[in-house]
Amino acid sequence: MAVDLSALKLSVREAVRGSARIFSELRAPWPRGGVNRDTYGLGEQRAHDVVRSAAQALDLEIAVDFAGNLYMTLPGIARSAPAWMTGSHLDSVPEGGNFDGAAGVVAGLAAVEAMQRMGAVPQRDVTVIGIRAEEASSWYQGDFDGHVGSRAALGQLQPGELQRATRIDNGRSMHEEMQATGCRPDEATPGRRAIEPARCHGFLELHIEQGPVLVERGLPVGIVTGIRGSARARNARCLGEYAHSGAVPHEYRKDAALATAEFCCRMDQAWSRAREQGQDLVFTVGRLFTDASAHSITKVPGEVNFSVDLRSQNAGTLHEMTALAQQIATDISERRGVTLALGTFNLSQPARMDEQLVESLSGGAAALGLRSMPLPSGAGHDAQDFAAAAIPTAMIFVRNDNGSHNPDEAMGMEDFTLGTQLLAWQLIQ
Amino acid sequence: MAVDLSALKLSVREAVRGSARIFSELRAPWPRGGVNRDTYGLGEQRAHDVVRSAAQALDLEIAVDFAGNLYMTLPGIARSAPAWMTGSHLDSVPEGGNFDGAAGVVAGLAAVEAMQRMGAVPQRDVTVIGIRAEEASSWYQGDFDGHVGSRAALGQLQPGELQRATRIDNGRSMHEEMQATGCRPDEATPGRRAIEPARCHGFLELHIEQGPVLVERGLPVGIVTGIRGSARARNARCLGEYAHSGAVPHEYRKDAALATAEFCCRMDQAWSRAREQGQDLVFTVGRLFTDASAHSITKVPGEVNFSVDLRSQNAGTLHEMTALAQQIATDISERRGVTLALGTFNLSQPARMDEQLVESLSGGAAALGLRSMPLPSGAGHDAQDFAAAAIPTAMIFVRNDNGSHNPDEAMGMEDFTLGTQLLAWQLIQ
Repeated sequence: MAVDLSALKLSVREAVRGSARIFSELRAPWPRGGVNRDTYGLGEQRAHDVVRSAAQALDLEIAVDFAGNLYMTLPGIARSAPAWMTGSHLDSVPEGGNFDGAAGVVAGLAAVEAMQRMGAVPQRDVTVIGIRAEEASSWYQGDFDGHVGSRAALGQLQPGELQRATRIDNGRSMHEEMQATGCRPDEATPGRRAIEPARCHGFLELHIEQGPVLVERGLPVGIVTGIRGSARARNARCLGEYAHSGAVPHEYRKDAALATAEFCCRMDQAWSRAREQGQDLVFTVGRLFTDASAHSITKVPGEVNFSVDLRSQNAGTLHEMTALAQQIATDISERRGVTLALGTFNLSQPARMDEQLVESLSGGAAALGLRSMPLPSGAGHDAQDFAAAAIPTAMIFVRNDNGSHNPDEAMGMEDFTLGTQLLAWQLIQ
Repeated sequence: MAVDLSALKLSVREAVRGSARIFSELRAPWPRGGVNRDTYGLGEQRAHDVVRSAAQALDLEIAVDFAGNLYMTLPGIARSAPAWMTGSHLDSVPEGGNFDGAAGVVAGLAAVEAMQRMGAVPQRDVTVIGIRAEEASSWYQGDFDGHVGSRAALGQLQPGELQRATRIDNGRSMHEEMQATGCRPDEATPGRRAIEPARCHGFLELHIEQGPVLVERGLPVGIVTGIRGSARARNARCLGEYAHSGAVPHEYRKDAALATAEFCCRMDQAWSRAREQGQDLVFTVGRLFTDASAHSITKVPGEVNFSVDLRSQNAGTLHEMTALAQQIATDISERRGVTLALGTFNLSQPARMDEQLVESLSGGAAALGLRSMPLPSGAGHDAQDFAAAAIPTAMIFVRNDNGSHNPDEAMGMEDFTLGTQLLAWQLIQ
């Protein structure tokens, strides 16, 4: 379809004025510091209320599914055709930023408002989704996987996950918290879907970049090529033996700290080799600590707890690196007389973005005169669950400074406008 | 002097029955778990009261100095001659064992009781000392050095140390705590001595071994050749930059954990080389932790705090290793874009035991038919302050399992008897 590019750009620019108001309202309960839109808590619910009001003001069709996901639809020409879906999550991490997640929902609303302002009816329905519980693992603990809202809507939950996830601060299960928020968690059973893939033409998620690449390259927008999968050892532990730091000679030591340091160094070296061979990989030991109730300057440490996070766009690379990690752990345990146990690696498969959609977005950026680059997403996103459901999926990243998951996120509204123009350009087709 | 070895051995064996009672009384307030003889607190004071009563029952001459050290003297033949001194500290670490320190005082009392039982008057006065505040650094924080009691008695305190040391649990200065215990801290000025080196023939300290060497070698008693000095960085820190573990590629990371791990590994390798060259050295990173209020599995860590403890009998080795540590820290900081700051190393000089005394004790062990071995002390002891005051000093280690500074210390009373026989053999001469 031939789109009037000037009209589109102008309409989006006008619609984004409303976006600024929505962002302000979303931020209002936390005027300073971080936002706390707690998953299936009052903070997340308030964000849903704000967004729902904005959608009602645009006269969109509103629906909510059993997991509390919010659907806001602008009817298209062919109402029976599979719909475009766009959006992101409305919860945040504790003390998080205002844009991580919410920007994708607000951009979706701005895109449909722009179509209304242009007087353009899209080819097919455009549904903006406010997704629940993408940051669930920051608020809940237990044996469950992330992205609960999108996985629930797509029928991807495992049996019992909602019962096993318990809120860190009050101990209540996610199932209970969902009921308290007016959801119907008993309907969130494996295989039951609120979103039927066959009824979905494609899913587009706009999100702030959580790394520094666009800032470093001086580009406002990125088009995501794939989402890195991860292999995580949450509760890796090295057990040695506490001993006097002066009185115990080398040959009698079972030093958990030096053993863990060796593990980190050898994995760091393996990471260097992988990069030299052109593999996509990041390796992080985010938590690393001796036991504060037992450690001392003058004790050989008997215990170190740590975490391992490996991420790659390539499932094979993740497999090789976890195998190598286990092999290094075994070698160190034998040589140093410690028990270095990584535990199970939780695997999240890499997701490929739809090639045609990525190509289309690149073409759109060129048509709009928008400087952009292709890049991988290192962080996980709801988009990967849509991709896993075989829905053609793509993501638009907007330049953002200072990373995410903190109050210092810095997305400029001009960059947001450009990203939303690209989103609207795709959705109107 | 010709000593009746059989009579000495028998008398010590009899006297040790009283030692068992004293150990029970010392332990009584903490019938289970660790003992808590807090420095200049009620726990330490109670131990002094128990020991003082035992000394009074033996009719010893009792004195207490301005720092609260307790002197219990058996008069010798030549009262004007410089006296033998023996003893150890009566405080413990928090949740410590019953023998660390106290065994040396109880052994001293058993040795003089044995002389009384034999009807033997020693050549010179024998003064048993119950020393204060050897474990001060476990109960107090601030800019002060350890072994406050012995250093006070020997005039080795630095100006202001007692004011700068503040008790960790209540924030009061050691100066205040000393006053509350009936000491006269204002008299504990640099250079003022309660023990005049010229009036001291020698100092002997019996102590449980805090390492596993005697247990591993199957020997009841060790004769200490020297006390390792230490170089300690208490508050080493690596500052990097927190970042998203998935979204930030390698080249933009300032990873404090991998930087600190590299530091540990390179120091570990340097330690191996030093041992291969026959150098006496131990290296410990006892505390090592990312910041629990900021770290996460999915964040590149921006901060790691850690400690370094280097010990050697050789001052030159300590000097070389601290210089190397600083050099490695600088190299890592430059290469990894972090700030790896070790801070100041607190130095405690190695102490040599008196060669003649060590030789004499070896001879005594042989005469008593006691299997022993020479070994260094890795831990610091009051004895090193006596050595620093040019008082001929030596130490007797008694076999002990499970290390020290914990409730599981395991010194057998038979080994204690053998060690005390050697002590009495030396003091009677």
